[in-house]
Amino acid sequence: MSGVRSSRIRSLKCRECGREYELEPLHVCDFCFGPLEVTYNYEEITRSLTKEKIRNGPKSLWRYKELLPIETEDPLDLGTGFTPLIRSTNLAKELGLKELYLKNDTVNPTFSFKDRVVSVALTKTREFGYTTVACASTGNLGNSVAAHAAKAGFESYIFIPADLERGKILTSAIYGPNLIGVEGSYDDVNRLCSEIANEYDWAFVNINIRPYYAEGSKTLAFETAEQLGWVAPDHVVIPVASGSLLTKIHKGFEELHQIRFIPDSKTRISGAQATGCAPVATAFANHTFTIRPVKPNTIAKSIAIGNPADGYYALKAVTETGGFVESVTDEELVEGIKLLARTEGIFSETAGGVTIGVLKKLVESGKIASDEVIVAYITGIGLKTVEAVENALEGLQVIKPSVADFNDKILRRNPSLGQ
Amino acid sequence: MSGVRSSRIRSLKCRECGREYELEPLHVCDFCFGPLEVTYNYEEITRSLTKEKIRNGPKSLWRYKELLPIETEDPLDLGTGFTPLIRSTNLAKELGLKELYLKNDTVNPTFSFKDRVVSVALTKTREFGYTTVACASTGNLGNSVAAHAAKAGFESYIFIPADLERGKILTSAIYGPNLIGVEGSYDDVNRLCSEIANEYDWAFVNINIRPYYAEGSKTLAFETAEQLGWVAPDHVVIPVASGSLLTKIHKGFEELHQIRFIPDSKTRISGAQATGCAPVATAFANHTFTIRPVKPNTIAKSIAIGNPADGYYALKAVTETGGFVESVTDEELVEGIKLLARTEGIFSETAGGVTIGVLKKLVESGKIASDEVIVAYITGIGLKTVEAVENALEGLQVIKPSVADFNDKILRRNPSLGQ
Repeated sequence: MSGVRSSRIRSLKCRECGREYELEPLHVCDFCFGPLEVTYNYEEITRSLTKEKIRNGPKSLWRYKELLPIETEDPLDLGTGFTPLIRSTNLAKELGLKELYLKNDTVNPTFSFKDRVVSVALTKTREFGYTTVACASTGNLGNSVAAHAAKAGFESYIFIPADLERGKILTSAIYGPNLIGVEGSYDDVNRLCSEIANEYDWAFVNINIRPYYAEGSKTLAFETAEQLGWVAPDHVVIPVASGSLLTKIHKGFEELHQIRFIPDSKTRISGAQATGCAPVATAFANHTFTIRPVKPNTIAKSIAIGNPADGYYALKAVTETGGFVESVTDEELVEGIKLLARTEGIFSETAGGVTIGVLKKLVESGKIASDEVIVAYITGIGLKTVEAVENALEGLQVIKPSVADFNDKILRRNPSLGQ
Repeated sequence: MSGVRSSRIRSLKCRECGREYELEPLHVCDFCFGPLEVTYNYEEITRSLTKEKIRNGPKSLWRYKELLPIETEDPLDLGTGFTPLIRSTNLAKELGLKELYLKNDTVNPTFSFKDRVVSVALTKTREFGYTTVACASTGNLGNSVAAHAAKAGFESYIFIPADLERGKILTSAIYGPNLIGVEGSYDDVNRLCSEIANEYDWAFVNINIRPYYAEGSKTLAFETAEQLGWVAPDHVVIPVASGSLLTKIHKGFEELHQIRFIPDSKTRISGAQATGCAPVATAFANHTFTIRPVKPNTIAKSIAIGNPADGYYALKAVTETGGFVESVTDEELVEGIKLLARTEGIFSETAGGVTIGVLKKLVESGKIASDEVIVAYITGIGLKTVEAVENALEGLQVIKPSVADFNDKILRRNPSLGQ
């Protein structure tokens, strides 16, 4: 299996030693074991790509195809991306912010931002000619790989921690993949998948396809800038699991600057973690780029990666741009979910609760200024992690089907409302 | 409270006696008790509205604002609508169809098509000056009203059957409404709400705001036609609860023809019900327009309306266009959910399972021809009704984190895959 060399897409390049490789299913440098990243010929893209062309493109992440490592004219499209950027009214007021936006990535085909990376990964997988795809997942990725594999006709193997939230297990199972629960943490699952990837010639979306896969996250930056009228925000808050999402959103803004679509890329990038799994936040607090792996202990399972593959690069992006990495407790993240729902009508999973909790903390500590243009990334749906907010059900009041009972049990408690 | 008379929006008109009313919060004719419907000045709309204008509009249902009964320039927008129309590849093949599309309305802000009607209803509610909104709901509507009320700052009362799926209760509760579980069926809830609506001056989205509310469903027809390149499909399959959705999709295609956006509106309209609550399908089978109310007994609770308010008009639309109303059992609807997921990567709630089940049945009985351009409407997310497909969890296989265990427990059972 061999990649096609395109003049728009240049190479795979080692982030450490700079050695370049052909566009093949590789993810680490043969020489220094550094991670490989896709590079582009930006001069050529600048010549051929216009904002007009994007505006007339599909209403999905494929409107930015020329900035993605894809050759085919017919990418795998379940309708992922170009999700709403919602101007926050109530939450902004509650936090004392002037201009806050929420990027609502819950409304993707499998209800998380993972559809972005998987759309790109499985399109590339098809280009490479594989027939079997696989992934290690904390849930959302598995959902997305299973759904896209169903559509594309791939055999799929989804590896997840056996103790995952039922909602996230079912939402993989429903698409009919080979679904394998591994007794252990996500890091155990990941290690096992690396070993299996060495034995079988499959496309592991977050192992040998990872350099292509990760590029899909850039589209969150592209959409944000386009939806703001081709301007980058002042500050973004992004949940950190492996760190890949954060580094790629950073790369996205930089690329838009490079092709002269936005005036500058001075966006400050901040990361959000759960205190029960905060290796990147801990390193940031200790002013070190050395990340010490931890054993996760948080309900925010979708971002509970104790040994984050791109943690170092995430820290670099944060530090270079003047951002922060902060963490919140499980109690604070639950509050974050509820705050977002009752102010903006968006129901997020635990990771979004972390993002909102950290946003609040950064504002309260003065690290985010009230006049910054801020974007918070809500990366997945609350319905997959209902366990976290089940006590909201206590709000249900039961009555008999009569006006008398309604007046008596409900309105009597709140007499100002019977107006 | 009084409506504003617009030259584009003409009146509320009784569907029975034709008497016209000002644009106020009314829903039945004072004289004959017929339902009121919004009418427009199509000549004026034809003069002012262009496809170009729509194409450059927002990426939401508000791109069709000029065909909706709204005056404000600043409608309530959580990003509803303009959802993907997915060309079915695998399901079409499995059913022997040439050109099948799936309108994926699971990716709305609260994950069902109800966000369409609620966006319109609550925008109108704000125009009327109400501060309290309410609804009777089988779940999805309550979710949407609660979320939109949170965003708009309305006090909200959500009335639901107390025995609803937990997923649908939680997804209302999370947005912080007054959430009232009524001991009884949806029809009991609905009756209670009508009584309460008589006592308090609130905006009940599906009672006194209903004529405006219902118009939101037309956008499903508008989007379908636009996404097909301004052509109406030959045949559509739509789940039937109150019947409002079906009649409004029909109206939508007719309006597009009226303003000369599509060459004709010969779309055949077919309805889908669950056998356990199929009053419209039964009337259709019996060649009568008299619908006998039934007591619902099906897991498809979101469409389990035993006494459908618009059932008569739905039947009329079906009959006039040469469509059908068919029903499927709970077992068949569960198969429909699974079939859709494993072929197209879309995870639908029970109503979508009904739609797919009925589509299959209509094809197999020769009522849908294999060369028709068909659109099936998938109106809500599977994550709210996981109970229906919980046995899919049986697909999970658990192993220890070792390659040996993987080879032994998983691959040994399927030796062709270790290639």
